[in-house]
Amino acid sequence: MEAEIIAVGTEITLGQIVNSNGRLLADQLRQLGIESHWQVTIDDDPNRIDQAIQQAWSRTELIFVCGGLGPTDDDRTLQATADALKIGLKVDEEQWQAIQKDFQRRQIPMVPDNKRQAYYLAGGEPLANPVGLAVGSFWQGRGHTVVVLPGPPREFKAMVTESLLPKLKALTGKPIMSRNMHFVGCSESELMDRIQEYLTTKEVVVTSYVQPNEVQVRLTVHGEARTEANRLLDQVEHDIVQTVGQHYFGTGNNISLVREVVTLLKAKHLHITAAESLTGGLFQATICSVPGASNVFNGGLVTYAAAVKEKLLGVPTDTIDKFGVVSAETAEAMAIHSKQLLNADIGVGFTGVAGPDSLEGQPAGTVWIGIAYPDHVESFELHLSKQLGRQNIRMQSVQRALLLIYHGLK
Amino acid sequence: MEAEIIAVGTEITLGQIVNSNGRLLADQLRQLGIESHWQVTIDDDPNRIDQAIQQAWSRTELIFVCGGLGPTDDDRTLQATADALKIGLKVDEEQWQAIQKDFQRRQIPMVPDNKRQAYYLAGGEPLANPVGLAVGSFWQGRGHTVVVLPGPPREFKAMVTESLLPKLKALTGKPIMSRNMHFVGCSESELMDRIQEYLTTKEVVVTSYVQPNEVQVRLTVHGEARTEANRLLDQVEHDIVQTVGQHYFGTGNNISLVREVVTLLKAKHLHITAAESLTGGLFQATICSVPGASNVFNGGLVTYAAAVKEKLLGVPTDTIDKFGVVSAETAEAMAIHSKQLLNADIGVGFTGVAGPDSLEGQPAGTVWIGIAYPDHVESFELHLSKQLGRQNIRMQSVQRALLLIYHGLK
Repeated sequence: MEAEIIAVGTEITLGQIVNSNGRLLADQLRQLGIESHWQVTIDDDPNRIDQAIQQAWSRTELIFVCGGLGPTDDDRTLQATADALKIGLKVDEEQWQAIQKDFQRRQIPMVPDNKRQAYYLAGGEPLANPVGLAVGSFWQGRGHTVVVLPGPPREFKAMVTESLLPKLKALTGKPIMSRNMHFVGCSESELMDRIQEYLTTKEVVVTSYVQPNEVQVRLTVHGEARTEANRLLDQVEHDIVQTVGQHYFGTGNNISLVREVVTLLKAKHLHITAAESLTGGLFQATICSVPGASNVFNGGLVTYAAAVKEKLLGVPTDTIDKFGVVSAETAEAMAIHSKQLLNADIGVGFTGVAGPDSLEGQPAGTVWIGIAYPDHVESFELHLSKQLGRQNIRMQSVQRALLLIYHGLK
Repeated sequence: MEAEIIAVGTEITLGQIVNSNGRLLADQLRQLGIESHWQVTIDDDPNRIDQAIQQAWSRTELIFVCGGLGPTDDDRTLQATADALKIGLKVDEEQWQAIQKDFQRRQIPMVPDNKRQAYYLAGGEPLANPVGLAVGSFWQGRGHTVVVLPGPPREFKAMVTESLLPKLKALTGKPIMSRNMHFVGCSESELMDRIQEYLTTKEVVVTSYVQPNEVQVRLTVHGEARTEANRLLDQVEHDIVQTVGQHYFGTGNNISLVREVVTLLKAKHLHITAAESLTGGLFQATICSVPGASNVFNGGLVTYAAAVKEKLLGVPTDTIDKFGVVSAETAEAMAIHSKQLLNADIGVGFTGVAGPDSLEGQPAGTVWIGIAYPDHVESFELHLSKQLGRQNIRMQSVQRALLLIYHGLK
């Protein structure tokens, strides 16, 4: 089934706020197997609302009109939708009583237009608003379903989840199953190129998404029974892990690499620390972003200047003089000394060039990561693109270190 | 002038990400007096891209097509736009050289489609991408202007700001002057309430925007001569600083609080350091996000556990035992000892409760910041809302410390 989402709101077309309702609804619809290929945003203008609805009517059977149900003059959505459908409005008497009570309780005067918030499309049903005053509408006729929803994100979310989804589930019924796989340390195009080569199962749709700190790959199966869908997903997931496993860190909807690492450390009763140069504390701050980080992290050092690497951390002056600050030897020494100083099980050293300028003849994006495990030390060189910019070079260095530790502990 | 913004991206229609590019562009256009009443989002489908462009062509003269310029199979925007306009594509040779160099330097193999990122609409001009590989297009013909822009928000923003806006300004010509004022440490509604009371100049439009680390207030004057516009802006800016100056840290388009603080430190030849508990390195990482941070920062400590505060930093066990970890005394001791240990001019101590659980009977959001200046020590207590969540409590603590230091040095 296809849907079209129309968002109404001058504050969106003026660029004052993002259209977060559109994202929420599209995501919910997708989980029901409903695709919304067209999403249109317009200002609070009755003519454009009419045009948008006519357009949507011509290309889809399920239409959502979101926003503009408030009591002020510029809230024109419901009347304009009724006009476009050539139908009238009805009062939800129960809601109208509730609105009057609410104003009495809050001891504030009502404006006549407050009654409008109890209106819904005649011939349809009101959609209850669990957290606000305006009801929504669920209208069906002439081969179409038209749904009207409020604009404030809190009300929108509550009405979609509690009042709308049960009705939509009854409309669809087609099973859909999907999984999210998570990757770090390679570009989306590189990843998808390598995956495509090995994919033989046509029943599984594979799509990719770039997130700030990772690439996500989603596997989706439409219209298969649960057991068969799981078998297909298992097979493709297995193939992908075989192909690009060194970048993979998990499958699920609410996972992040740092949470996986903290969970692993906790399960193995290991403490981690770091001495950070180019990342300037970002690795430790990322570890501390996970609730319960205190189970695996006591503290560490930011050793930005060479003198601090020597004085506070104890990296031998010889090492820096002989191999340079940006070197495997310095990264490993930073890892080893931080581990000793903090009495930890794992120490991580970061040294490199965040840019924009180069350092010791090395271009921005050159990074060495040293990892001192309980029984051995490793180091890795990254050549990140200078064009990523200082901040992304630092963020990616942290993610790459987390991935190395994840695979080192697995 | 009117514009239509077409966002292309299956990740948006599927509800995986919000269309933040649409907001940014609409906001920039509005400042130039260009209204975008229609904004359309579609998936990466050549037929729908064609339909969306035909639709937009019929109702507006300025059309933006955003997203889908990557090197993978599902990036179809440029070819589909060229087809819709019945024109061809051209290679930006300079960019093609740059792409090849970038891949060589990073020592990763190129896929054939990477060349596509150097294509632009024939008969138009390429729009430079300051931070990525794909060029944009600026095409004019048959009474219309068609602009093609990349999808990744970082690239989108850089191309809009640096490559597109100068061209659009030439298109419009209507004088508009604006200023961006920056604030930290109070909510948008609180700020605007206090500002509104004092505003008397109707010619200056005052709008506000919430950014991740600050609130921005924009002052705009339309259609006035330069001198008069500046006089009006000066007056309103002055009034606002008088009213809410304790939250203000500057006016401009490319300023951030941390850059202002690093600039001040550098001008005064001061070095800063920190000992961080709940912020876990985020303050130092924020300082290091500024290019040239090495002029003012040599390193510092993350002292998450009490034992590390004592052993590594030298905070007396007595202080922690007597006053608790979350106290003015501990924050000040952390500031003083970090300053001494790193031989710095200013030391900052962070201790508090990031949550979700409370600590020492203090709720999440309780934070103490100690600041040791060359000649005195100060400390400040924050009561941030628990509902902000762990990550925002940590980020806001860092911003509040930066604001305190900014005003301390000014």
